[in-house]
Amino acid sequence: MTRGLFITFEGTEGVGKSTAIRGASDWLTQQGVAHRVTREPGGTPMAEEIREVLLRSREEPVDPTCELLLMFSARAQHLARVIRPALEAGEWVLCDRFTDATYAYQGGGRELDSAPVAQLESLVQGETLRPDAVLWLDAPVETGMARVAGRGGEPDRFEHERVRFFERVRQVYEARAGNPANRYRRIDAEVTADEVADAVRKTMEELHREWTSLQ
Amino acid sequence: MTRGLFITFEGTEGVGKSTAIRGASDWLTQQGVAHRVTREPGGTPMAEEIREVLLRSREEPVDPTCELLLMFSARAQHLARVIRPALEAGEWVLCDRFTDATYAYQGGGRELDSAPVAQLESLVQGETLRPDAVLWLDAPVETGMARVAGRGGEPDRFEHERVRFFERVRQVYEARAGNPANRYRRIDAEVTADEVADAVRKTMEELHREWTSLQ
Ligand SMILES: Nc1ncnc2c1ncn2[C@@H]1O[C@H](COP(=O)(O)OP(=O)(O)O)[C@@H](O)[C@H]1O
Ligand SMILES: Nc1ncnc2c1ncn2[C@@H]1O[C@H](COP(=O)(O)OP(=O)(O)O)[C@@H](O)[C@H]1O
Ligand SMILES: [Mg+2]
Ligand SMILES: [Mg+2]
Repeated sequence: MTRGLFITFEGTEGVGKSTAIRGASDWLTQQGVAHRVTREPGGTPMAEEIREVLLRSREEPVDPTCELLLMFSARAQHLARVIRPALEAGEWVLCDRFTDATYAYQGGGRELDSAPVAQLESLVQGETLRPDAVLWLDAPVETGMARVAGRGGEPDRFEHERVRFFERVRQVYEARAGNPANRYRRIDAEVTADEVADAVRKTMEELHREWTSLQ
Repeated sequence: MTRGLFITFEGTEGVGKSTAIRGASDWLTQQGVAHRVTREPGGTPMAEEIREVLLRSREEPVDPTCELLLMFSARAQHLARVIRPALEAGEWVLCDRFTDATYAYQGGGRELDSAPVAQLESLVQGETLRPDAVLWLDAPVETGMARVAGRGGEPDRFEHERVRFFERVRQVYEARAGNPANRYRRIDAEVTADEVADAVRKTMEELHREWTSLQ
């Protein structure tokens, strides 16, 4: 059986990741492709508990290395319980954020050295488990922030960060997109929701075509 | 100002670590030595939340790498918020379990490779932060288990493990004790509570004498 494709959705807050993932899932359903939609940090009951600890707003300043290790602890559990078994069973996995977000948020946003991120990526994922495609929804930080403002709810610990933080996050995504080994597919997310949905569907069609040619 | 000493207490379940740490703290109080008693995993409100996630008994099998990373995430927070500031302020730190327990439980008990433990130790502690002394309370696994049985309460996720698991834990402590760089002080914990308390006090006196000679 052919392994499923592992597709991740990345970008700054409010840029349209959750919207895109719903569109991609609907399209796969229409094609009859077995798949699973999940998110990081989280994706299993225990990993969601870790997510809670990570995102809760708190008085206590969070040590950046603590934050980084929590991210990868949730990821290890998610990989072992959900992502690896699904891919091996031939299902596609659509994941809302993954390790690229760690490079972008902990490395870029928090200005941590990227070496420990790479070290933990190897420890947790080995040398082969990487996304088959990273759908990078790219738009100016303010565009996403304006969209999120309309979404309501209490901001979490990351959403409290300022524009400068998210500018650095976006810059890391941009730099990573420049390396073909990272398999980025940039999607212009500044346009209307319909236009973004079209671009996402087109990318999914391409990936699906490549995948079926391997069967 | 002289940095405080960092003393950790190690050993299998029920061997007498918490009892020993109370005795050591009382002795330091009598000597007028500023110190702090803490424990791992935990030691800050956030690290205690991580401890909860780690120790809670659950249906979901816990991936060993997830568990290992959770341990070190709590440790990073504990070091940043409590241990390093206290030592730098000249206070002694008495800690109920530390990285030796990770080698023993994750490496020995869970039979994980020790290489990732060593890698995370370097990442989180750097090359210099290590215990000044590890008070290793050593007794046969069954002795501790019989003592814990009298303690009551629900067993946590580790306390559910079997004798073979704790035998492996004890073997790692024994192996580590053999390397002088690890600064173990073995305390025979099979004897009466009073005899253990005497041995702990004697060790504290030695450490205190060395420390005051440095002032
Ligand atoms: N292209 C778009 N144009 C305008 N609004 C959008 C667009 N894409 C998504 N939205 C809206 O913006 C908000 C954030 O989208 P969402 O998909 O939740 O972003 P993310 O998951 O990246 O934070 C939602 O209210 C969504 O309906
Ligand atoms: N040397 C000893 N002999 C007999 N009982 C002991 C001794 N040391 C401690 N105990 C008792 O054994 C139980 C476990 O001791 P505790 O200090 O909580 O162990 P740990 O912290 O290593 O799990 C407690 O009820 C304690 O009073
Ligand atoms: Mg979203
Ligand atoms: Mg105890």
